[in-house]
Amino acid sequence: RRARPVREVLFFPSRPCCVEALLAEAAEPGAPARPCPCPLPSGDTALSRLVRRVLSARRSLDLCIFSFSCPQLARAVQLLHRRGVRVRLVTDAQFMGLPGSQIGRLRHAGIQVRHDQHSGYMHHKFAIVDRRMLITGSLNWTTQAIQSNRENVLVVEDAEYVKAFQDEFERMWEEYNPANYSFF
Amino acid sequence: RRARPVREVLFFPSRPCCVEALLAEAAEPGAPARPCPCPLPSGDTALSRLVRRVLSARRSLDLCIFSFSCPQLARAVQLLHRRGVRVRLVTDAQFMGLPGSQIGRLRHAGIQVRHDQHSGYMHHKFAIVDRRMLITGSLNWTTQAIQSNRENVLVVEDAEYVKAFQDEFERMWEEYNPANYSFF
Repeated sequence: RRARPVREVLFFPSRPCCVEALLAEAAEPGAPARPCPCPLPSGDTALSRLVRRVLSARRSLDLCIFSFSCPQLARAVQLLHRRGVRVRLVTDAQFMGLPGSQIGRLRHAGIQVRHDQHSGYMHHKFAIVDRRMLITGSLNWTTQAIQSNRENVLVVEDAEYVKAFQDEFERMWEEYNPANYSFF
Repeated sequence: RRARPVREVLFFPSRPCCVEALLAEAAEPGAPARPCPCPLPSGDTALSRLVRRVLSARRSLDLCIFSFSCPQLARAVQLLHRRGVRVRLVTDAQFMGLPGSQIGRLRHAGIQVRHDQHSGYMHHKFAIVDRRMLITGSLNWTTQAIQSNRENVLVVEDAEYVKAFQDEFERMWEEYNPANYSFF
């Protein structure tokens, strides 16, 4: 029997929190918890909820993120990749090389990344988990945005909305295929 | 009998289009259409759909927009204000004064505008029409974003999501009340 579809709204800035326990549990499910030496509380915050939603991926994670500098979210994505989840990431050509960007690290870890090739921005900030749950809003995946900005994220488990975003993702994924680069 | 709740996803960039007919009809409902001399087609585009949704407000329009420079959307908001719709606008202190910003024009027209007072950004981009329909996504209300960026906008007529955003709007509206300014 299916659980009730997820419907959630997260507002940022998030209260400061430690997500090490979440990441450790995802890396080694069931392993004994090692307390993190950092002084931050681990608790229920907008950031911890976002990380949990991302870590819930079992088969696929399609990411379309304008600016991605948050180390915790990058580690969550890497964990999923190592666990065999098919991760694809679309990002912005002009922002992917800025200081603090996690894109290089993710590529280094073997994650497929594609970027736009036009002068406008690839300004989306959404994720699709298992082709079933849409995470979207104003929030770039940056520490600045998570800690300091007023932001929103919607979590929507609704086939109609998910399909629209999945189709847009597939369009961009093809359009930004390096095999199609035109170099003008 | 209520119509089926609105559920829509708009993707940008929008095809170029003229929205003069939409604005004219909103300004003077039923008046004979005067053809616009501009060469752009008027047609069904992401921009025209967004303008239509905004213009559908009858009682209230609560706006929370990080960067607002699109003249057509500013004119739509002014039209609503003139028609007696209660318009409230929350924006970002650092972006409201940038060249091309429409915030001055909207204030000049008598629309209430409040802005954040912290170093982070007020980065939301949402609108609530008649406390019933939520318009939210990655899209700032700028010509650049509408014409050049990859962006998304969700239109959601769902009490649960609308309430979360309406509550967040009311919190910000109070927090940014100039009567509470602290000037430090």
